[in-house]
Amino acid sequence: MFEQLGLIGCGLMGGSFALALKRAGLVRRVVGYSKSPSTTARALQLGVIDVEAPSALLAVSGADLVLLAVPVAATETTLKAIRHLVSPDMLIMDVGSSKRDVVDAARRVLKHDVGVFVPCHPITGREVSGVENADAGLYAGRQVILTPIERTLTTKLDQAVALWRALGCEVVTMSPEAHDAAFAAVSHLPHLLAFALMNSITGQPEGKDYLSMAGPGFRDFSRIAAADPQMWRDVLIANREELARQTEQFQLALAEFQHLIVNGQADELERLINRASHARANWRVSPGAR
Amino acid sequence: MFEQLGLIGCGLMGGSFALALKRAGLVRRVVGYSKSPSTTARALQLGVIDVEAPSALLAVSGADLVLLAVPVAATETTLKAIRHLVSPDMLIMDVGSSKRDVVDAARRVLKHDVGVFVPCHPITGREVSGVENADAGLYAGRQVILTPIERTLTTKLDQAVALWRALGCEVVTMSPEAHDAAFAAVSHLPHLLAFALMNSITGQPEGKDYLSMAGPGFRDFSRIAAADPQMWRDVLIANREELARQTEQFQLALAEFQHLIVNGQADELERLINRASHARANWRVSPGAR
Repeated sequence: MFEQLGLIGCGLMGGSFALALKRAGLVRRVVGYSKSPSTTARALQLGVIDVEAPSALLAVSGADLVLLAVPVAATETTLKAIRHLVSPDMLIMDVGSSKRDVVDAARRVLKHDVGVFVPCHPITGREVSGVENADAGLYAGRQVILTPIERTLTTKLDQAVALWRALGCEVVTMSPEAHDAAFAAVSHLPHLLAFALMNSITGQPEGKDYLSMAGPGFRDFSRIAAADPQMWRDVLIANREELARQTEQFQLALAEFQHLIVNGQADELERLINRASHARANWRVSPGAR
Repeated sequence: MFEQLGLIGCGLMGGSFALALKRAGLVRRVVGYSKSPSTTARALQLGVIDVEAPSALLAVSGADLVLLAVPVAATETTLKAIRHLVSPDMLIMDVGSSKRDVVDAARRVLKHDVGVFVPCHPITGREVSGVENADAGLYAGRQVILTPIERTLTTKLDQAVALWRALGCEVVTMSPEAHDAAFAAVSHLPHLLAFALMNSITGQPEGKDYLSMAGPGFRDFSRIAAADPQMWRDVLIANREELARQTEQFQLALAEFQHLIVNGQADELERLINRASHARANWRVSPGAR
């Protein structure tokens, strides 16, 4: 049980975390801050937070749990804003989709206090954003990746693990580097491809007509293209090196397909599709299959 | 009401069509043929067809409605096999995802009888195939694209329109060329990208680990990668010219993203993602939004 959650960023991820914690009876009071005062006001109105803070620093004042739920590029500025109230009694976590940049920012700003910061990435999200869509069930049944560094305090890590488990999550621990490599492949690149496909189609004169004929396959494939632009801008830039590596791998795989298609090599093409189809048919969303 | 459906190909699409027709009380008898005798036997067992035909020709014997539900590259061979029993009293349709190649095959084989053939593409499907997954509801609420040519008989076209509407479909008519251009963009390219992504990931030594961390975004994006390899082999080759054109457009859109990511141009990148995100958020699967 936490006394006070200092919530910095009252959007979909932050708002849902506050609601989940409340529903699980794990927090007594949520003090929230958002860059936009109207978001903070709305969060209060919706019962997502109990108290509006006029600054990130004041949201942290008196908190034993702090969640940074801001676009990853805002991590450093946010940590600088709260650093004077960071104390050893506090657990600080984030929910960013890239981890090396977040960890580097935490090291730079928190210095000897960096041990209270546990970098987290809950594998969840929705194609809508904003506190209006906050959902107490957003985290339940999902994986959360924790990427502690050498200086992360074991007590803080244990506390974070227990907290996420209490919300119904499966916790996995790995290095920030391993995290960023994996998510470049299974999340950042798919988002990039979905964004590029949407812009490719809408950029054509007949794009609107084409879209009017798209079916359920397109619906599912393109769903992630509706993701939050600000959040994804930061993630794609933060993890650009691993993303470039994955894009290159993808281009090679695509070129292999194109070669067979252009040459009408049906048997080889079927084998290639078969490999993809089998891999996908045998995959299950984590943690169900584990 | 049709006396006899001659069903050639008793897989997911053909089997579901037979079940839908039966449920709607639109057919008295279904005579089915599949290349694999075990599939035909299974279709009989499951009540999808009423009579097993030992050849495509015998499935057509006595039929006033014929559905070709075979991979598109098998269209020509199939039409050749049945051509001696094609009569002016008959409506022949297909369900192929590419249309220019199908129409060309019909012209070549059926010659002066080509008017009884109405080329159809129902915008539906599932990530599983086979008669075991046949579903009477697969077509209801979906769009069906009809691509008649000059020689298509108006009476046959009207009959086809009425039939699909009776199954709960929204019917749209266009040229085979317009169809193939649109579906290269909203279906064939997304399938190709999903196949390539799966193979790109599984081709890496850490691919399995990466996949174990993938979440709901990946699940939806990659769902179409589990599609039927034989069917998609044919579609990608049949529509390779339009597909190449769409792949090129996509590569340009992707390169624009990559340029901004590599250079860390956050504002421009956000604008680009914003365009994609808005387009996707405002899109609804047809025909709901129409």
